Amino acid sequence: MRRSLIILVLASLATSVRAEDGYELWLRYHPVSDPALLEHYRTALSGVLIEGGYSPTLNAARDELRMGLGGLLAREVPFVGKAGQDGILVAGTPATSALIAGSDLSNDLKSAGDEGFVIRSIRAAAKRQIIIGANTDVGVLHGVFHFLRLLQTHQRLDSLSIAEAPRIRHRLLNHWDNLDGTVERGYAGFSLWDWHKLPDYLPRRYKDYARANASIGINGTVLTNVNANAVSLTPEYLKKAAGLAAVFRPYAIRVYLTARFSAPIEIGGLKTADPLDPQVQGWWKQKADEIYRYIPDFGGFLVKANSEGQPGPQQYGRTHADGANLLGDALAPHGGIVIWRAFVYDDKVPDDRAKQAYNEFKPLDEKFRSNVLIQVKNGPIDFQPREPFHPLFGAMPGTPLMMEFQVTKEYLGFATHLAYLGPLFKEALDSDTFAKGAGSSVARVIDGSLDGHTLTGIAGVANIGSDRNWCGSVFAQANWFAYGRLAWDHALNSEAIASEWIRMTFSNDPTFVRGVSSMMVASREAVVEYMTPLGLHHLMARDHHHGPGPWVSGGPRSDWTSVYYHRADENGIGFDRTATGSNAVAQYYPPVADGFASLERCPDAYLLWFHHVGWNHKMRSGRTLWEEICRHYQGGVEAVRRMQATWQSLEGSIDSERYEETRVFLKIQEAEARWWRDACVLYFQTFSNKPIPKECEQPDQGLDYYKSIVTRYVPGTARPIR
Amino acid sequence: MRRSLIILVLASLATSVRAEDGYELWLRYHPVSDPALLEHYRTALSGVLIEGGYSPTLNAARDELRMGLGGLLAREVPFVGKAGQDGILVAGTPATSALIAGSDLSNDLKSAGDEGFVIRSIRAAAKRQIIIGANTDVGVLHGVFHFLRLLQTHQRLDSLSIAEAPRIRHRLLNHWDNLDGTVERGYAGFSLWDWHKLPDYLPRRYKDYARANASIGINGTVLTNVNANAVSLTPEYLKKAAGLAAVFRPYAIRVYLTARFSAPIEIGGLKTADPLDPQVQGWWKQKADEIYRYIPDFGGFLVKANSEGQPGPQQYGRTHADGANLLGDALAPHGGIVIWRAFVYDDKVPDDRAKQAYNEFKPLDEKFRSNVLIQVKNGPIDFQPREPFHPLFGAMPGTPLMMEFQVTKEYLGFATHLAYLGPLFKEALDSDTFAKGAGSSVARVIDGSLDGHTLTGIAGVANIGSDRNWCGSVFAQANWFAYGRLAWDHALNSEAIASEWIRMTFSNDPTFVRGVSSMMVASREAVVEYMTPLGLHHLMARDHHHGPGPWVSGGPRSDWTSVYYHRADENGIGFDRTATGSNAVAQYYPPVADGFASLERCPDAYLLWFHHVGWNHKMRSGRTLWEEICRHYQGGVEAVRRMQATWQSLEGSIDSERYEETRVFLKIQEAEARWWRDACVLYFQTFSNKPIPKECEQPDQGLDYYKSIVTRYVPGTARPIR
Repeated sequence: MRRSLIILVLASLATSVRAEDGYELWLRYHPVSDPALLEHYRTALSGVLIEGGYSPTLNAARDELRMGLGGLLAREVPFVGKAGQDGILVAGTPATSALIAGSDLSNDLKSAGDEGFVIRSIRAAAKRQIIIGANTDVGVLHGVFHFLRLLQTHQRLDSLSIAEAPRIRHRLLNHWDNLDGTVERGYAGFSLWDWHKLPDYLPRRYKDYARANASIGINGTVLTNVNANAVSLTPEYLKKAAGLAAVFRPYAIRVYLTARFSAPIEIGGLKTADPLDPQVQGWWKQKADEIYRYIPDFGGFLVKANSEGQPGPQQYGRTHADGANLLGDALAPHGGIVIWRAFVYDDKVPDDRAKQAYNEFKPLDEKFRSNVLIQVKNGPIDFQPREPFHPLFGAMPGTPLMMEFQVTKEYLGFATHLAYLGPLFKEALDSDTFAKGAGSSVARVIDGSLDGHTLTGIAGVANIGSDRNWCGSVFAQANWFAYGRLAWDHALNSEAIASEWIRMTFSNDPTFVRGVSSMMVASREAVVEYMTPLGLHHLMARDHHHGPGPWVSGGPRSDWTSVYYHRADENGIGFDRTATGSNAVAQYYPPVADGFASLERCPDAYLLWFHHVGWNHKMRSGRTLWEEICRHYQGGVEAVRRMQATWQSLEGSIDSERYEETRVFLKIQEAEARWWRDACVLYFQTFSNKPIPKECEQPDQGLDYYKSIVTRYVPGTARPIR
Repeated sequence: MRRSLIILVLASLATSVRAEDGYELWLRYHPVSDPALLEHYRTALSGVLIEGGYSPTLNAARDELRMGLGGLLAREVPFVGKAGQDGILVAGTPATSALIAGSDLSNDLKSAGDEGFVIRSIRAAAKRQIIIGANTDVGVLHGVFHFLRLLQTHQRLDSLSIAEAPRIRHRLLNHWDNLDGTVERGYAGFSLWDWHKLPDYLPRRYKDYARANASIGINGTVLTNVNANAVSLTPEYLKKAAGLAAVFRPYAIRVYLTARFSAPIEIGGLKTADPLDPQVQGWWKQKADEIYRYIPDFGGFLVKANSEGQPGPQQYGRTHADGANLLGDALAPHGGIVIWRAFVYDDKVPDDRAKQAYNEFKPLDEKFRSNVLIQVKNGPIDFQPREPFHPLFGAMPGTPLMMEFQVTKEYLGFATHLAYLGPLFKEALDSDTFAKGAGSSVARVIDGSLDGHTLTGIAGVANIGSDRNWCGSVFAQANWFAYGRLAWDHALNSEAIASEWIRMTFSNDPTFVRGVSSMMVASREAVVEYMTPLGLHHLMARDHHHGPGPWVSGGPRSDWTSVYYHRADENGIGFDRTATGSNAVAQYYPPVADGFASLERCPDAYLLWFHHVGWNHKMRSGRTLWEEICRHYQGGVEAVRRMQATWQSLEGSIDSERYEETRVFLKIQEAEARWWRDACVLYFQTFSNKPIPKECEQPDQGLDYYKSIVTRYVPGTARPIR
């Protein structure tokens, strides 16, 4: 016995040498390292009872418990047939489990809804039990993941009393994945979806993707790029999507597709895609019927129309509402939804792109079918390191608005920069629109509570690709995790989410958790500082968006340049969006608008977003604006160096493989932060004509050097091959 | 103790649930399953002694032994300081190890050369020892991999007496990888090289790539596509290549790059790339000097010139020799080599493309510098499932010729089709050119023994990509393995190599080995049968080459069509390459040429390669040609079904993950074999006007259906983004 154990150990060790490659994500079920806690868990969990029902979803819950408890408790926890002994974990629904039906959960279960759950430590017939109850099998699955998270984060099980339900109904990932395997703005390799081998070949990775999503409550995934390809709606590709849907179904992850508005022409052979044309309407109805034959629980369509060259209803003199309702009518008989993006700007360059979505969509409020949601990016430009919240939130009370976050770091340093986006997400969600007075947060707009919507949603543009570690770096996984956790419950604290993620991903060691948490919590602000401090935005290099390009001007349209946004001149810098400028502030409700419009009251963080400010303007710090800009760029670099120092102090706390990855990436980040700082400060200096303050490091090179850098073959920019 | 062991076991089991994803390749060091053999190994190997020297290469050998023996013997085998006890494995070189210097290996070591090794079971001072001796550290490393392979394949260690040295000096992989991450004709995901994160980020995978190559004796890798990009020669990218070279160096894998002939214009700012222009010559010399500053052991350049649109010396009225010598002169001071490809065809469509390389290169024999090799594909067209050997082999005795095999399965079903290429490689290597009478095999041309060359080489177009299993399928790994083993020793038997690979990759279970070996050995012939039987060739779909396209005609040039090659008409089918046709047979030496030219003596396998044959021609089988063609197509499908049946009979012999992958891929292969059969037979039937014989399955669909199939987004066809 002992001998064969040793053999097994050594064999396992030999093969697990390479294991720390990040593939496991936060679903790590390694043995609990604290002996007392391990004993506590073993005592509390002598067996598992999932009563009645062998649905695919309950089987997934069983598998997860078997794997999770077996790993965490470092022993097999038996599945039992009855709850006679002490320490049984009972999981199920009232419909299939007499024990759950008989327990005192009915009140809590009322509020658990279709996806929530209740976890309780109870005593039944003098025996300790832990109950995971839910109204549905997927609620049980969510409860199981939540319960395993308790163990992964070293929480005691004596007096559990947890009741959870998601605040938002549709919690989606948006994959910007092309059918040729490239991913637009993807920095984690190429597409997860191996279309060529689908639907026959369904590698384990698809299931692990579903597990990871279900573990944080994500319940839908849009497989294809918003810059859509009609081919994805052909039978050949619907069969492939159906293959994925079958893998995801036990985990209650629904599949969605992007619908190219001109598909009736491109794959339907029609002469028009006019949404009021009966043939077009018929084509979409038949297409929807066809899709549901392949994928009975198909989620619906995500549409980018009349934006950045995509076709749309405006080509036919119709409105976005006409377009969205066309698809809404087609999907309605099947229960599908339409998610119509508000990220639009047409061929004419506007005086201020920040105003365009509001101008186009606000007049359409209440004009959409009941199964249509409007998906709005968190800010009015495009996923910048910091933007004020989008003025559409609160402006369309008669229409359900969905939040669109970007989890992939298109403007935040790609795969290598450590930028934890929990604080960014929270900043947007917690922003008060004042739509119905104080307390009208963006979160309350999108969770429906402000305006009484029951159809609600949130989307994150995925950062997931074929890289072994899924996201291009281990720390980028935290953004997938944080997005999912906040989609489930936007009231969660981003620091607490970071702590949870660190414990699940790396270690419960308090020093490690504290150190890494401090890095993560400060990281997004560091990126803001070395890229776009004080409300600056859209300063990146053209097209691929890697590295600084504050000098970018000319080209096809001025709102694709940097100078359009920063407007630096010898007098000062910043985009005047007050009444003397574009007056974008007027799109916000008065208390917000007034604050943004006032040079005195506008927060420093948004100063140059809303104001053109003189170089000598005295800041709250006492410094001039020029000095303040320089200080912020320098501060961003210093913040990265602090992350490096913290990380180095933690060497040895975790495996060398993930330690080393992060060490190298922080080195790249520090170098690129200096690149951003030096390029931007030198460029802005050509307008300010002032010296870089002594307390800031002087650039190594002249401006011409930074302008001469050409970065080639940047990930995430490949175009689909048609 | 026992308790913590159990914990470790369970933890390791929990985390190794997903382990069987093919990542380990054939370097699996799982515990020896046969108890008696395990005991034998443990007795024979009580300790390891690597005397003297801590070079990176000897350290790599130590690491491999630690990992390999620890896993296989399921216990740590200690590294000891002296060989006092029984059962010590002694490894080293005479230069650093007194034990090796003092042992009786000197004769064997003479023939081991710079890379070979000797393995012996000996008795020293009445103690049993195993010695791995070599003249160089890399020889020791090769010996270590060989030794571990003995254990992996369950061979006894009592009386080892092995002496090995490679027969060919440069054993290279050619990666057709683009700087944007795409891989031309790559079916295993995207490029292994993450250029964007190089040289800072060097994930473990690069080292495992080097280990895998070193384990089979590959000693060089061309990182970039032969359709070359001059950017790869800029300092920015040389630094990145140097990062890879540093990882590969301990494993004695040298880095090579493809040289775009027009690079002096594109990145050098010159007006010409004329090889006789002194400025151009100076530019290449400086470029070579620069490369060697970054990569001191840089291998050299691989060049595709004046072929398929690539620039080359002929643009300036110069010859291939002028071009190759230009680069040869630049590299010579550093010891680098030039590998110049003979796969050429110019803009004018020739009467027979099969003749072109011979016509262009034979007159240049003896005109190349001493550090230039000419790389010749195995056959005269392009990596078809079967081709006769290339007539250049034997035709240029004054020039070292390198073999170019395609390991990636561009024309053999891509990732999913099981096609073991060992027999294909052997068929080419063993072909007798009769250049100096009988026994003048292709292998003897390329190993230098026929014509007395010491500069020798062989190349395989890699099938390696970012897919977790490296090659797109587990069975495709066998082709990488077989290529490397044959590059080291072309005298090996392809069935024995298959057996070795099966044992190392899957299992030593005799039933399993026998069954899988039978599948592998028959697999390539199956592909020939359902794609291109009886000497047919180039029948695939245009451009992406996936699936059948015997009807392909028209387009930019006739030698990119199928009809150019099969020449089917109402009288018959096949390309007349005898004296009444293109007379390509005349490029072979008389005994070969006569055999190919004779309708009676030409082997069936090459019949339609060399002859246009009437539909009613009586074959050796007694059937008409038409019936024979149909029988072969049907036979290919049946062979795949036999593979399916064999595989299904082995279910349970190995892990379910790799079992299932292969099961699904065989299912795809069977369907695609039917697709090939039905499309080809129906199309050729339009010429033969004869019924499909009753013993063959009748197609499900009509010809129009097969012609209407459009396969989109086929892997391996992405174009680099410039």
